Amino acid sequence: MTRGMPSAVPDDGLSTQQRRLRPALIVNTGDGKGKSTAAFGTALRGWAQGWSIGVFQFVKSSSWHTGERVAFEALDALHRETGQGGPVGWIAEGLGFTWTRRGGDLDAQAEIARATWGHVRELMAAQAHRLYVLDEFTYPLLRGWVDLDEVLQVLAERPGTQHVIVTGRRAPEALCELATTVTEMTKHKHPFDQGQKGQSGIEW
Amino acid sequence: MTRGMPSAVPDDGLSTQQRRLRPALIVNTGDGKGKSTAAFGTALRGWAQGWSIGVFQFVKSSSWHTGERVAFEALDALHRETGQGGPVGWIAEGLGFTWTRRGGDLDAQAEIARATWGHVRELMAAQAHRLYVLDEFTYPLLRGWVDLDEVLQVLAERPGTQHVIVTGRRAPEALCELATTVTEMTKHKHPFDQGQKGQSGIEW
Repeated sequence: MTRGMPSAVPDDGLSTQQRRLRPALIVNTGDGKGKSTAAFGTALRGWAQGWSIGVFQFVKSSSWHTGERVAFEALDALHRETGQGGPVGWIAEGLGFTWTRRGGDLDAQAEIARATWGHVRELMAAQAHRLYVLDEFTYPLLRGWVDLDEVLQVLAERPGTQHVIVTGRRAPEALCELATTVTEMTKHKHPFDQGQKGQSGIEW
Repeated sequence: MTRGMPSAVPDDGLSTQQRRLRPALIVNTGDGKGKSTAAFGTALRGWAQGWSIGVFQFVKSSSWHTGERVAFEALDALHRETGQGGPVGWIAEGLGFTWTRRGGDLDAQAEIARATWGHVRELMAAQAHRLYVLDEFTYPLLRGWVDLDEVLQVLAERPGTQHVIVTGRRAPEALCELATTVTEMTKHKHPFDQGQKGQSGIEW
């Protein structure tokens, strides 16, 4: 992180303060690693600010007790006990990457994705969280399980100061156009290509 | 995260288990966002595994109470009180990006970087941590404040199973060759380019 200075001051009628506090829509895409972990690293910063954090995992199975979930649940408990940081809500209702395997239940996966998005939409209308992590949200968008146009409208019209981070490969161009920050994680070298399987503590 | 399957099984004489537990050397580079936050997101996974985590920030000033530091200090305290997760050590002795401003004290910055690296080297020899985050370590390497050949040798010969994540722009090619995972974060859109300054909770 640099305490970055803008390279130009735009003629948008906003004050520096207004521009600084503009709600962020961050897209982490690409085929490399770091899309989700960067979202969770950013969520740590929000947590430390006392923000309410909502994490919605559109693919990961609810039976996967990932390290990031364990850690954020600990931070949420700490907040409730001591008041430090902010509360964290975590929704992971997916079935895992079942569609990549034969016999995966696509209809069930699609239904879960739509229900999870509907939940996000309601929370945004109610300004329930200050920061949303929509983890692997590009997959239901790409498959058409969740309507992209509706998502763009909800995000564009979200009230107040609600920051959103979307992760996943092949983020739709229209989503990137709406975003304030788009980063592509590009794989230059990956252990899976060298015959190594994922390991706990690093991959989950 | 996908519970990734390797695309090929190499003829390296290692068992699947040995290959899976091979110490990771992860490099997050490029001019986009997410290099450090991805490292901290991965460190959350290590923490949840009960690993000892060591974070060494080569540039950030010790006076910056970044959100990630606040959160990991809370997780470290939680570990000491309840035994959950692992211990976290955090070293940030830098002076900030002083060299990008007129009058920055380059000699002091170089001396601090060398001392911090010396500390890391000793801890690695003693196998003090299971995961090291060397945040913005490429900067002292690029400036020659820390000797690249020595770093490569220490990393290549580190004993046991000690994972290392290095972040920073323009990672040296030789470091990427030694790495098990290299990801380039590419900036496609960034609010600083649109005249927006960084904001707390997102940028720190």
